[in-house]
Amino acid sequence: MSSEQILKNTNADILDEFNASIMFDKELYTQDIKGSIAHSQMLCEQGILTKEEQLEIENGLFQVKNEIETDQFKFSLEYEDIHMAIENRLTQIIGEPGKKLHTARSRNDQVATDFRLYVQEKTLKIKDQLKELVSTFVEISNKHTTTLIPGMTHLQHAQPLNFGYHLLAYANMFKRDFQRFESSYERNNYCPLGSAALAGTPHDINRGSTSEKLGFTAPTSHAMDTVSDRDFALEILFNISTSMMHVSRIAEELVTWSSYEFQFIRISDEYATTSSIMPQKKNPDVPELLRGKTGRVYGNLISLFTVMKALPLAYNKDTQEDKEGVFDSVKTIEISLKILNEVIKTMIVNNDKMESACKVGHLSATDLADFLVKKKNMPFRTAYYITKDVVEKANSLDKDISELSISEIRESNDEIKDIDEELLMYLDLRNSMNARTSFGGTSTIQTENQLKDFENWLKNN
Amino acid sequence: MSSEQILKNTNADILDEFNASIMFDKELYTQDIKGSIAHSQMLCEQGILTKEEQLEIENGLFQVKNEIETDQFKFSLEYEDIHMAIENRLTQIIGEPGKKLHTARSRNDQVATDFRLYVQEKTLKIKDQLKELVSTFVEISNKHTTTLIPGMTHLQHAQPLNFGYHLLAYANMFKRDFQRFESSYERNNYCPLGSAALAGTPHDINRGSTSEKLGFTAPTSHAMDTVSDRDFALEILFNISTSMMHVSRIAEELVTWSSYEFQFIRISDEYATTSSIMPQKKNPDVPELLRGKTGRVYGNLISLFTVMKALPLAYNKDTQEDKEGVFDSVKTIEISLKILNEVIKTMIVNNDKMESACKVGHLSATDLADFLVKKKNMPFRTAYYITKDVVEKANSLDKDISELSISEIRESNDEIKDIDEELLMYLDLRNSMNARTSFGGTSTIQTENQLKDFENWLKNN
Amino acid sequence: MSSEQILKNTNADILDEFNASIMFDKELYTQDIKGSIAHSQMLCEQGILTKEEQLEIENGLFQVKNEIETDQFKFSLEYEDIHMAIENRLTQIIGEPGKKLHTARSRNDQVATDFRLYVQEKTLKIKDQLKELVSTFVEISNKHTTTLIPGMTHLQHAQPLNFGYHLLAYANMFKRDFQRFESSYERNNYCPLGSAALAGTPHDINRGSTSEKLGFTAPTSHAMDTVSDRDFALEILFNISTSMMHVSRIAEELVTWSSYEFQFIRISDEYATTSSIMPQKKNPDVPELLRGKTGRVYGNLISLFTVMKALPLAYNKDTQEDKEGVFDSVKTIEISLKILNEVIKTMIVNNDKMESACKVGHLSATDLADFLVKKKNMPFRTAYYITKDVVEKANSLDKDISELSISEIRESNDEIKDIDEELLMYLDLRNSMNARTSFGGTSTIQTENQLKDFENWLKNN
Amino acid sequence: MSSEQILKNTNADILDEFNASIMFDKELYTQDIKGSIAHSQMLCEQGILTKEEQLEIENGLFQVKNEIETDQFKFSLEYEDIHMAIENRLTQIIGEPGKKLHTARSRNDQVATDFRLYVQEKTLKIKDQLKELVSTFVEISNKHTTTLIPGMTHLQHAQPLNFGYHLLAYANMFKRDFQRFESSYERNNYCPLGSAALAGTPHDINRGSTSEKLGFTAPTSHAMDTVSDRDFALEILFNISTSMMHVSRIAEELVTWSSYEFQFIRISDEYATTSSIMPQKKNPDVPELLRGKTGRVYGNLISLFTVMKALPLAYNKDTQEDKEGVFDSVKTIEISLKILNEVIKTMIVNNDKMESACKVGHLSATDLADFLVKKKNMPFRTAYYITKDVVEKANSLDKDISELSISEIRESNDEIKDIDEELLMYLDLRNSMNARTSFGGTSTIQTENQLKDFENWLKNN
Repeated sequence: MSSEQILKNTNADILDEFNASIMFDKELYTQDIKGSIAHSQMLCEQGILTKEEQLEIENGLFQVKNEIETDQFKFSLEYEDIHMAIENRLTQIIGEPGKKLHTARSRNDQVATDFRLYVQEKTLKIKDQLKELVSTFVEISNKHTTTLIPGMTHLQHAQPLNFGYHLLAYANMFKRDFQRFESSYERNNYCPLGSAALAGTPHDINRGSTSEKLGFTAPTSHAMDTVSDRDFALEILFNISTSMMHVSRIAEELVTWSSYEFQFIRISDEYATTSSIMPQKKNPDVPELLRGKTGRVYGNLISLFTVMKALPLAYNKDTQEDKEGVFDSVKTIEISLKILNEVIKTMIVNNDKMESACKVGHLSATDLADFLVKKKNMPFRTAYYITKDVVEKANSLDKDISELSISEIRESNDEIKDIDEELLMYLDLRNSMNARTSFGGTSTIQTENQLKDFENWLKNN
Repeated sequence: MSSEQILKNTNADILDEFNASIMFDKELYTQDIKGSIAHSQMLCEQGILTKEEQLEIENGLFQVKNEIETDQFKFSLEYEDIHMAIENRLTQIIGEPGKKLHTARSRNDQVATDFRLYVQEKTLKIKDQLKELVSTFVEISNKHTTTLIPGMTHLQHAQPLNFGYHLLAYANMFKRDFQRFESSYERNNYCPLGSAALAGTPHDINRGSTSEKLGFTAPTSHAMDTVSDRDFALEILFNISTSMMHVSRIAEELVTWSSYEFQFIRISDEYATTSSIMPQKKNPDVPELLRGKTGRVYGNLISLFTVMKALPLAYNKDTQEDKEGVFDSVKTIEISLKILNEVIKTMIVNNDKMESACKVGHLSATDLADFLVKKKNMPFRTAYYITKDVVEKANSLDKDISELSISEIRESNDEIKDIDEELLMYLDLRNSMNARTSFGGTSTIQTENQLKDFENWLKNN
Repeated sequence: MSSEQILKNTNADILDEFNASIMFDKELYTQDIKGSIAHSQMLCEQGILTKEEQLEIENGLFQVKNEIETDQFKFSLEYEDIHMAIENRLTQIIGEPGKKLHTARSRNDQVATDFRLYVQEKTLKIKDQLKELVSTFVEISNKHTTTLIPGMTHLQHAQPLNFGYHLLAYANMFKRDFQRFESSYERNNYCPLGSAALAGTPHDINRGSTSEKLGFTAPTSHAMDTVSDRDFALEILFNISTSMMHVSRIAEELVTWSSYEFQFIRISDEYATTSSIMPQKKNPDVPELLRGKTGRVYGNLISLFTVMKALPLAYNKDTQEDKEGVFDSVKTIEISLKILNEVIKTMIVNNDKMESACKVGHLSATDLADFLVKKKNMPFRTAYYITKDVVEKANSLDKDISELSISEIRESNDEIKDIDEELLMYLDLRNSMNARTSFGGTSTIQTENQLKDFENWLKNN
Repeated sequence: MSSEQILKNTNADILDEFNASIMFDKELYTQDIKGSIAHSQMLCEQGILTKEEQLEIENGLFQVKNEIETDQFKFSLEYEDIHMAIENRLTQIIGEPGKKLHTARSRNDQVATDFRLYVQEKTLKIKDQLKELVSTFVEISNKHTTTLIPGMTHLQHAQPLNFGYHLLAYANMFKRDFQRFESSYERNNYCPLGSAALAGTPHDINRGSTSEKLGFTAPTSHAMDTVSDRDFALEILFNISTSMMHVSRIAEELVTWSSYEFQFIRISDEYATTSSIMPQKKNPDVPELLRGKTGRVYGNLISLFTVMKALPLAYNKDTQEDKEGVFDSVKTIEISLKILNEVIKTMIVNNDKMESACKVGHLSATDLADFLVKKKNMPFRTAYYITKDVVEKANSLDKDISELSISEIRESNDEIKDIDEELLMYLDLRNSMNARTSFGGTSTIQTENQLKDFENWLKNN
């Protein structure tokens, strides 16, 4: 073989490697076979395939599926993508009828169908996982509706909460995520099959039939739009990004809470790891990795947006770049939600530490101001400045305001020199938490109402 | 004044400039005043404000609004944000009652309410614009259901379409955008007001009342989640990004179509510009700028995602960075949709050029293959290879296959040496376009059906 | 005026607003005037302008500059961009010679020159700021080379450091940033002027002369590349993003350190803010905002990358979208570095709290392992497991290992039942810190060496 | 086995899958072994290992390397990462000395070293590829220094260029890319090894020695900074993004140029593909895919920026997410540059089509204006308006201005009614191209100079 010949081959190999998508789109083999079976059944209904041909195709496709699942199928770059690879193998097995399968369809609508089926199936799966995660937050929350924790803004103690309430904030986020996936599922549940290359087909096909067989609501309504549309893929990437952003927030809190300084929780030994040179350490690797994985899903979103920018109609090869990012984001969220669920379930909550932390930072300062407004009918801004004086008094005594005596309070500012002793009750931290009874507030009663709503939601979704 | 004093002041100025949001969040003044009025009315209903106090507040706020709208209001860095600026001015005008307005709320829920009101109002406006744009595409499409244009994949001629059909692809995209905005509007139409700092309030407020007054579906259900939640802002940024991505695609086509080489359309003189040194040029600046503006909206999306990553609960100052990007994206899409609408309406379509272009590239090649499949019952793959031979024959004669005589066709491959003359009808370009009668296909009849569906949709939305 | 006329005008206004860049590119007025003066001088040198014409132009341009700087210049959308606005005003002032200024240049190379001048000037300014910031870190670090702080990995105590050393990590980051800006400055210091529209010019110009007058190294070497090249803008956006990422890291630490739980530092009152309803709070708003501003600079980077993707040569209007993001990123980093510098300079360091924190978490565990390796010649992995036993012993006694007696240590594991008392010295926290004398290590001596290197670097850069 | 037990194991498996990096960081096995050998040699030089121990380690590591390269090595999730996997296997092979290898290092500096070695090696490789690509552009350019092509701005014909000159624009871009990689290589060529966990080590190591053995310039100067620093990874991601952006621009042009409408070039059959249902089509899949791949590299950049945002010092597990994106971007650019190089080398240039396209669009209009300025001493703006009249005249005659007779020109505007016939020479398209002799201009002479400069650069780099 001449050296020029070799060079040629080498280039061809590189080209195959560059062009081919089979090494990642084989992920879609079930969807491809499912789609082909539905297509062949419809072709048969329409008299385009005979009953015998259809049966041969269907059995042949089952055999291919079986070969793939038992590792007997050779994924070769030669057949560029999973669709060609399956069709080729089918034709090897059943001969002529295999060649008829591609009637009235094109790779463009076939790819769009397979990919959409994948996105829709995964959307349902992620919804289930989100629901399970909400359920876990509800479960753990239920145990902590009276456990005090310093509610923070700016990582500074602000007002006392119960820990169950804090966790429910995340239940709300993941519930919203669930709703977003639900909404994108419905908006995108339309079947591309039969759009053909870009303009539909002259064959007398029944798109409604394939759509129904594949579980879609209806066929898409414009062939050219359909083969160029990747909105459904952008939507799942966005939904995953938003959800992983929420994961990153609880992850950040878990890391902070498990520091020596906070010690609000401990990650269970199963989910904490050790150092290769510091045997004394328990590292919150798992929450950190959850937090870090936000990066890749953001990246996948921006990747597809970049690909789609300024693409003329209709199908262009650029679009082949749509899948890997979606596969990666889907896998990332699947494992992340699973792992987060376990971490939350198994974390050890240090009630004492949380409660004692509440005594630092004058958490009931707002209650003092509110008391002055409600009971003394002061304008809020005036009450605010008096509160400031009480806080300073407390600081000078090295106490929390919840620990001040009534006389100490009365000394701090002239306008409250006769303030009722009843005030002390309002400064009590647990009372402070329970005072926030407005809808959506932190009081134990409100938290319990919210828990009931969640339980109903879990039952009905 | 000592030089140290001066330094101090300089720093303080820079700090104000750094911290303050008033220079951009003044955009929210109507929402802030609207929210404050609703809040004061509710406080009055609940007996927290007297009727007189409430009226003074309401009138005072109207005065502030008027001052802003007549440029008499001084936006000063001193009052950090629009909320403080308005409250301060109110108190200057009406005195004590002004100080009571902040009862039972915090800047955290106030900001969240104002911003959400803005996003919701803009969402409705963008929906209107999208509908108008769809209507324009439908209108222009209606005039071109029989105008041939070469349908392209890979920027290569593929199959003949009608130009109306091509435009409807975009109508479909912008309709999906409309639906996404509709969906995010509903999902986020909940009222933050009354969430207070992070935990609700001990005041006996009625969040349902403020929610209703402000046009929300209901109050949000968890205070801490509410003050940290920016999902609604991410959603509008994503929806805008997707919509601008669609804009960039039609923009790319407009640029290509108006090149000397294509000449499919001409941008109306009003929307084309000239060169500073080349007087002969008409540049499609407007579509180019539309295409370029995709960049900024993608950037704004990734900005907010970055801000939200790993933020602990509840409110952190980082979140102040949520607004400018949303304002910018909203303005970008508003003007872009408006401009695109005009460009489409006023473009000059060169029917002749489009139709003559159809005669290049053997656009009816698929019809030949389909004919062999349907009439001769050949497997698709066999028909495909015969078609290839006919194409080669045509190339050797420097003709399009639609221009071949029946004998020329018969000579190209032995298997079709007796093929019926009827075939010629199938190779005719207009017939080819009209043959694609499958649901969603390009035939004039299908296109007209789709136009009817759009007209119904426009009527009902 | 007919209503159609009005519509027309309205559209035209919107179009002007859409197309025009003057409202943001007026930022470039000094660069534009500087560039025009250099251009006119060169034209004069080459005999294309007379000495008189050149003088009129130069004086006219100074007048325009003065008008802009004294707010007498009307920035009108009518003149689309700052370049046209200045040229028009110049021609109003000096008449005919003004019209000759545009000889041998085009808006394409003019814009490219102005923008590059801006980027280069700002690069130098940012470099200065980075140097000042490094200098601040060095200054504060100098005061804390013996202050113990628990060095953390995974937000868990790992090994004792001195606080000066910790701060120097940031000095290293900002020094690298400085070097990146230095490198991009040099790589991009080439003059676009004279590239004209895309192909150069037939006029007998001297590009070397304008390049030199404007402080560039040399003229760019290819006109078409030059007018389409925005690599220099991407580079500054990337450099700013990386630098702001570093800012976000120290910001995160400042927030964590100033929590009640850590109390390692306190943000000075000047740079901390208070809550609108919680008078007791000191919020680290400034570091939080620094952290949040990372979002916008990342967004600006991705925006320009999106704009440039798949742009054909040469100039396209999309490129007009290159400037706002750069202006915004530049302003962001300028104020951020200034503010961070002040925050670091004025923060109150709580030495006691840091040092006492070192006694939690067995920070000298690695020293125990290292002692066994060095003195007892154990394999590291064996020493690791013995250390683990000692840690467990300490935990059982509720002590830090640095507080164990020699007999308590000897009891923890059989292999060290005779270990020398000398070991205790190694477990001492300050000794532990000082033991790390390897190059780049934390020992006070090493830290002082590093400080010396920084002082030299500061002197020489 | 009870079902609970199974659940436990399943979780553990998932956790391993989640935490472990071995499935992707095995990519670093050569770097890890190289680093370990250098480390062991240095430990031996310092008397920490005996000569015998060091030899056993080195031979053991070579055996491990051989096992990996002959597929005998079992990559198991159990050993989490490639570093642990290799160390474990080493210890299985050689026993005790294997356990000593980890003396005076930590996984933190080990990972940082391996990853940096990878980035540096790949940087050199990419530089080579960029140089080869520049060389290809120079080679093809050399053949086309007199081939006319319409130079475009806004995808509109602007001025005539030679095609060699157009290609050299890309040579300039890829040369800049080369310089960026060169610069980042030098800036980051520092050795992390010996930084240990975060603070250096008490062992008497010689970091200069390992640094030298591994080909670094010097050891890094701050341990804590080093283990948290990923600037070098961001830099390669940015450099790749910028370079792929350039690839996307030539790719866009190749797609446009190979459309039926342009026909400026044809992609060689080897690099064009066919349709699954349209046998007549030659699709520019390869350039399209090159263009699409820009998305993933942008995404990888934003991913790592997201990961690094607000990470506290020192090492956090989030950083494990740094590698996959870099591996993917490196592979993407490696194959993309290789493929692009071939596509450019093998494309068929249609000189005739390009040249005839120059006769459309009045490409010499600027020459007319320049002639009036230079020869008639008109102000540029006046000449501009006269040119406009000539263009209109030509349009009315359906000619290009290069085809007008002198009398037709004279008729178009009174001010040039006596213009010299010499003008016609200036309107000739080839003359027009050759007139642009300014430095960096398109004239053949200038292009040849630029080619010479490139040849020198290629020789010296």
